[in-house]
Amino acid sequence: MTTDHVTVAILGAGSWGTTFAKVLADAAQERGESIDIRLWARRQEVTDDINTNHTNTEYLDDIVLPDSITATSDAVKAVTGAEVVVVAVPAQQARNTLADLAEHIDSEAILVSLIKGLERSTQATMAEVFAQELNLPAEQFVVVSGPNLAKEIAREEPTATVVACEYEPTAEFIAAMTASSYFRPYRNTDVAGVEIGGVVKNIIALAVGLADGQGYGDNSKASIITRGLTETTRLAMAIGANPDTLAGLAGLGDLVATCASPLSRNRTAGKLYGQGHTTEEVVGQMRQTAEGVKSVSAVVTLAHSHGVEMPIAEAVNAVVAGTIQIRDIAQLLLGRDLKPEARL
Amino acid sequence: MTTDHVTVAILGAGSWGTTFAKVLADAAQERGESIDIRLWARRQEVTDDINTNHTNTEYLDDIVLPDSITATSDAVKAVTGAEVVVVAVPAQQARNTLADLAEHIDSEAILVSLIKGLERSTQATMAEVFAQELNLPAEQFVVVSGPNLAKEIAREEPTATVVACEYEPTAEFIAAMTASSYFRPYRNTDVAGVEIGGVVKNIIALAVGLADGQGYGDNSKASIITRGLTETTRLAMAIGANPDTLAGLAGLGDLVATCASPLSRNRTAGKLYGQGHTTEEVVGQMRQTAEGVKSVSAVVTLAHSHGVEMPIAEAVNAVVAGTIQIRDIAQLLLGRDLKPEARL
Repeated sequence: MTTDHVTVAILGAGSWGTTFAKVLADAAQERGESIDIRLWARRQEVTDDINTNHTNTEYLDDIVLPDSITATSDAVKAVTGAEVVVVAVPAQQARNTLADLAEHIDSEAILVSLIKGLERSTQATMAEVFAQELNLPAEQFVVVSGPNLAKEIAREEPTATVVACEYEPTAEFIAAMTASSYFRPYRNTDVAGVEIGGVVKNIIALAVGLADGQGYGDNSKASIITRGLTETTRLAMAIGANPDTLAGLAGLGDLVATCASPLSRNRTAGKLYGQGHTTEEVVGQMRQTAEGVKSVSAVVTLAHSHGVEMPIAEAVNAVVAGTIQIRDIAQLLLGRDLKPEARL
Repeated sequence: MTTDHVTVAILGAGSWGTTFAKVLADAAQERGESIDIRLWARRQEVTDDINTNHTNTEYLDDIVLPDSITATSDAVKAVTGAEVVVVAVPAQQARNTLADLAEHIDSEAILVSLIKGLERSTQATMAEVFAQELNLPAEQFVVVSGPNLAKEIAREEPTATVVACEYEPTAEFIAAMTASSYFRPYRNTDVAGVEIGGVVKNIIALAVGLADGQGYGDNSKASIITRGLTETTRLAMAIGANPDTLAGLAGLGDLVATCASPLSRNRTAGKLYGQGHTTEEVVGQMRQTAEGVKSVSAVVTLAHSHGVEMPIAEAVNAVVAGTIQIRDIAQLLLGRDLKPEARL
């Protein structure tokens, strides 16, 4: 695999999909190589903004996108002939999006998931959804995840990430395609650990937002983050992941960035719950999907099926489902009795 | 050991020593038991404020202290007959403070360290300093550490902590003495892990402050926290600690609370360095000791003696020593090349 003259399709022109297009374009320019990036957006006004103004104002304000990025509202055209297909749609739309395009995606293409969620109806990870819909071998599935607030990357602030594939040369190839002066990819072969880290951090961020909305301070929020990472690691180990992955950039790093940032959708959603809003009201107020709201029931079901205790995810699930009073949640989030610290 | 009618001396009436006095007092009141707390402050204006107004305005604003707390500027009087002696002085003063009082501290007394630092000249942990100066058995040494921003606790915001002693019944006793509606202690027997977590988090907080002072965003800061915890865990394991301790409240929890909070002295100090100030200027601007500034050279020396790589601590040490240009530090903090994620 060579990084020169690669044709890339990116499905989804929200803030992260668009930013990832810019990452690929800037990296190619730094290498002195050419790249052809086709960014698929469902809506005409977004494709027009990108093609005419080289901006995606709705999601990235006045960030200027490189010339190597063109937008299209024709997904078939975007993926046809693409050697790399990046998917940045909401988790619940991934299966249908891929099914619709399966016959047009090259059988040799590398698929890159930027998605951080589980499929609600099946509890499937994106690795599983992609494999099922595209008959995709593990060697061609890559997940990119880490402390990656899109707007900071779009502003070219220094950022590290994890590029994971079970087959290391594929991870190396995608790492080489994305590495630039401001974006630093680290390779990993633990796809399951990277996926679970990204999925559950949205739920822990919701819990931190809840605590915030209820007026708790940094001591409480730090405890929730700590316990949250512990339960995330328990789930990851139950499905065969390496606990070190969760202690790394795609686990702890992503969790800390999300919980620290006022830009986080999931933390924002949690804060609205914490202030007493219902799911209908929270979803109504959010412009982009807060994946944690969508994935939490699947995470809890998956945890139950593996016999893993996840008290924070359970509490968030009850809040999202509206089956618990918000004022009763503090004890659930902060633990119960005097005891030795929980072990994995 | 019974928690009724305990006499406690607290050496050091800064924000954390004073807050810990309040924690003990409130816990006893909730248990319906009596307690006698003698808080030693060097300066007469602090003892007068506490004894006359039941406030320590200089460190805790208008927080009202319970009647069971009395202040004295006579340290010998404070410790004589005390069954529990809590030490909350700066790390570099611990040895002299204990040496001066050794003959007055009861040989059966339990010593509780609230200190998060190493002795610069010897790289000794507080467990070692206390043992040497008081001929103290491990059964009588307790360290309390966690995501414990003093001002939040003083405001009675829900907080969890770790109470560690190699002899579990002693940890249980101190946990029982501190547990209240707003303060939740967890026991641990890994004194070394808890101490290293507290020491190194101050240095990582300095690094996060540095990044902040240089204008980096949450992605970068999350990466520093992640790598910082990894190098902390490496050092802890080298001296025989349990890595799980560092993933818990006294490691990750404390680190995240410190790095999130505008109240953190070490993060504030780091930010001043990041804005271009020298150590002399930083120390001059800080009212209370930023322990990381004092301990970093000892941490680096300890790491070298165990063959442990700690690139972030090394970078902070160079900044504190004034041997590196602040603009050269980004690469040191953010890592170097495309590679698999570092393992412990």
